[in-house]
Amino acid sequence: MDLPHDAPFGVHNLPYGVFSTAGDPRRRLGVRYGDHVLDAGAAARATGAPADLAELLAAPSLGPLLAAGRPAWTRVRAALTSWLTDERHRAAVAPCLLPLADTAPHLPFEVADYVDFYASEHHASNVGRIFRPGAEALPPNWKHLPIGYHGRAGTVVVSGTDVVRPCGQRREPGEQAPSYGPSRRLDIEAEVGFVVGTPSAQGDRVALAGADDHVFGLCLLNDWSARDIQAWEYVPLGPMLGKSFATSVSAWVTPLDALRHARTAPPPRDPAPLPYLDDRAEPVPYGLDLALEVRLNGHVVARPPFATMYWTYAQMLAHLTVNGASLRTGDLFGSGTVSGPGRDTRGALIELTWNGEEPLRLPDGSGRGFLEDGDEVAVTATAPGPDGIRLALSEVRARILPARP
Amino acid sequence: MDLPHDAPFGVHNLPYGVFSTAGDPRRRLGVRYGDHVLDAGAAARATGAPADLAELLAAPSLGPLLAAGRPAWTRVRAALTSWLTDERHRAAVAPCLLPLADTAPHLPFEVADYVDFYASEHHASNVGRIFRPGAEALPPNWKHLPIGYHGRAGTVVVSGTDVVRPCGQRREPGEQAPSYGPSRRLDIEAEVGFVVGTPSAQGDRVALAGADDHVFGLCLLNDWSARDIQAWEYVPLGPMLGKSFATSVSAWVTPLDALRHARTAPPPRDPAPLPYLDDRAEPVPYGLDLALEVRLNGHVVARPPFATMYWTYAQMLAHLTVNGASLRTGDLFGSGTVSGPGRDTRGALIELTWNGEEPLRLPDGSGRGFLEDGDEVAVTATAPGPDGIRLALSEVRARILPARP
Repeated sequence: MDLPHDAPFGVHNLPYGVFSTAGDPRRRLGVRYGDHVLDAGAAARATGAPADLAELLAAPSLGPLLAAGRPAWTRVRAALTSWLTDERHRAAVAPCLLPLADTAPHLPFEVADYVDFYASEHHASNVGRIFRPGAEALPPNWKHLPIGYHGRAGTVVVSGTDVVRPCGQRREPGEQAPSYGPSRRLDIEAEVGFVVGTPSAQGDRVALAGADDHVFGLCLLNDWSARDIQAWEYVPLGPMLGKSFATSVSAWVTPLDALRHARTAPPPRDPAPLPYLDDRAEPVPYGLDLALEVRLNGHVVARPPFATMYWTYAQMLAHLTVNGASLRTGDLFGSGTVSGPGRDTRGALIELTWNGEEPLRLPDGSGRGFLEDGDEVAVTATAPGPDGIRLALSEVRARILPARP
Repeated sequence: MDLPHDAPFGVHNLPYGVFSTAGDPRRRLGVRYGDHVLDAGAAARATGAPADLAELLAAPSLGPLLAAGRPAWTRVRAALTSWLTDERHRAAVAPCLLPLADTAPHLPFEVADYVDFYASEHHASNVGRIFRPGAEALPPNWKHLPIGYHGRAGTVVVSGTDVVRPCGQRREPGEQAPSYGPSRRLDIEAEVGFVVGTPSAQGDRVALAGADDHVFGLCLLNDWSARDIQAWEYVPLGPMLGKSFATSVSAWVTPLDALRHARTAPPPRDPAPLPYLDDRAEPVPYGLDLALEVRLNGHVVARPPFATMYWTYAQMLAHLTVNGASLRTGDLFGSGTVSGPGRDTRGALIELTWNGEEPLRLPDGSGRGFLEDGDEVAVTATAPGPDGIRLALSEVRARILPARP
C-alpha cells in the first residue's frame, strides 16, 4: 500500500500501539500507517524477520520492545520501514495491513510510575496569578528545577475511554467547611507525555546526554483536573484527588526517532540552571517544535506551541533521577500543560477562561467556563518531518460522562 | 515444630513474604513462623492441598494471593494454621520449615501505586510549626480529609536494602539560589503501610465498610525523607525528590486477619467528617493499637503509638477512591509518620530533634540532628493478640550509605 510522501502518518512517522479486532480479541502490537494498522507481529512472521525482532513484535504490549533498548528500537524501525516500502515485501505485508477503523486501541504499555511536570513558564505564571493573587506568579524554585509530582499510574487510560466526572470535597468561596459532590470545575491539561524504555538502577543518575538512551518516544496526554477539588486539597502535599481519577494518553506512541527534524533550541534560561540541568553545551537540542491543537466538541479552542516550554524532556529526566531514583520500563512523564504566550495558545480552560470568569463562546452559542457533561475534548499535534512535510502525533480524545450518584 | 503459645511470630501471626536461599535462588512464597520460614508452596504440595490453593502458594510473589480476594485469604490462613498445628501434617511439613537466617528476603509484591498519607495530628502539627512558623499548625483542610500524595512505587525496597544518601538541590537559610550536593538533613518517617489485594474498577468508590474486602494486610514502612531537598521543592506541587529515592518496607506482610485483637476506636474527630468519611456508625472500629519502636544504631529513640492516628486505613481508602480512582492489586498506602503527643513518641527526627536544633544523644556520646552515613535505622512494632499475648510486626531496617560522587 503506497501513501503520499507527505502523508502525516506515512513512512517517516510509524508510531506504535496495541490493538485488537472484533474478529480477534487478542492484543497485538501495531504500527499506524496512514488509515491502516500494520499487525507488526504478523508482518514479522510474513517477512521472515530475525527471531529476536519477531519475538519483540509478537508481544501483546509495547513492554518488551521498550525494555530492549535503543539499538533494538533502531533495528525494528529499519525493519518496519523496509516492510512498508520494499517491493519485495509488498505481497507478504499486504494482508497484515488492517483498516484503522476496524481496530480497537488498548493502552500501549503498562504504566510503571507516572510523573507530571509543570514545565511551561506561561502556564505556571498564569496558574500562579489565578491561585495565588498578590504573590509572585512563579514560586522561587521554578526557574531552578523542573517542578513535578507523582500521579496515579493505575488510572492512565487510552484515548477514546470515557471519563466520569469525579466527586469529591470542594470549598466554596467564603465558606469555612467543604461540601461533597461532583466537581463543578472540571478542566483539561494538554500535555506531551514521554515514555521510558530503558531502565536505570537505583542510585544511578541519568545525565542530560543519556536521555535519548532511556526515552523511547512520546504521546499526547490529557491530565484531567478537577480544579475545585485540587484547590481545596493541594496545600501542603500537592495535587491528589483533583487529578487521580483519570489521565488520558494517545493510542499511538511516536518514537523519538521520528522527531529528528522537530528538535529545536529551548528558550534561553535565566538564571542558568545548576550544572546537572545546564544544557548549553549539549551536542543536540532537546526542545521539540510540536504544534498542538485543542478541540472542544470539534471546535479549536487553543493552539499551544510546545517549543516554548522552559524545561526539556532531558532536563526532566535528569532531575527525576538526580537523587538516585531508578527508572523502570513503562515510566511515563508528562510535560505539564503546554501554554504559549498568547491567550489562544493556552492548554487549559482555567487559563483560557481565566478561572471561568471569561467563558469561551462555542459555535453553537453556548459558553464554557469549565467542562460540561457530554463534552468531548481532543488534543492533536503536528511536527516537522523531512523535506518540509508535517508528521502527525496521534490524538488523545475523550468524552465526559456525568458523575455517578 | 512447636512454638510457645505466646511467641511473637507464632501461629496467631503468620505473616507472608517472599524468600530465596543460597542453594535455591528461585523466589518462593514463605510464611514466617518463629525463627523459621515455612516454604508455603512446598507445604501445600507436601500436605496435598487443593489445587487452587497450591497454585496461589506456588507463585514467586504474593501477587496472585493478593488478587484472589478475602475468601481465598481466609482459606489459605486456615490451611496454614492446620499445617503448622495439626499432628497429622507434622511429618510432611517439617522439611518445609527453613531457618530464617538461611533465607534472603525479597520485596513481597510488585508495588502498583504508592500513596503516602499524613494521618497523625501530632506529626502534622509539629511539621506545620517547624516549616510554617507563625501560621496555623494544621492547614484548613487537615481535619476534613486524610491528606496524601502519590510517591514513587519503583523505589520501594525491602527491609535490609541499603539506602544511598540522595543528592539534590537545597537552599541554605538566607541564600537566594540553591546549591547542589548530598542531603544534609536526611530523616526517617516511621509508618504503617497497607497492602491492597482486591482491585476496584475505575469510577467505583470503596465505602468505609468495604475496606476489609480490599486491604490484605500491613507492613512497617520507612519513608526516607531528605528534608533540605523537600523544603526547597515542595511548594506548590508537594514532595518529590525529597522522598522518591527510596521507601523501605518490611519483608513480611501481616494479614489483617491476625490483628483482630488490635482493633480499637480511633480518636474523636471534631468537626465530624463528611458522610463518606464518617465512621461513627461502622460496626467495627478501624483504629489499630500498634506499638511502634524506632531504633537508631540499636538504641530506642521513639515509641510511636499508632492508636493515636486521627485517620484510619478505612478512611484513607474511602478518600483515595471517592473520585472514582481505581485500586490495583499491589497498591500500597502509607499512614504517614506515626507520632504521639509526647516528645519520645515522635516517628521522625525532624520532630524528635526539632529540626536539628535539639540533637538526640546516643549512648556512644554522639549527637544526631539528622542521619549520618553508616547509621542504621530499624522500626519494629507489636500488637495485641489473643489471650493477652503480643504479636510482632516484621521490622523494617536499613543502613545509610554515603552519597555517590
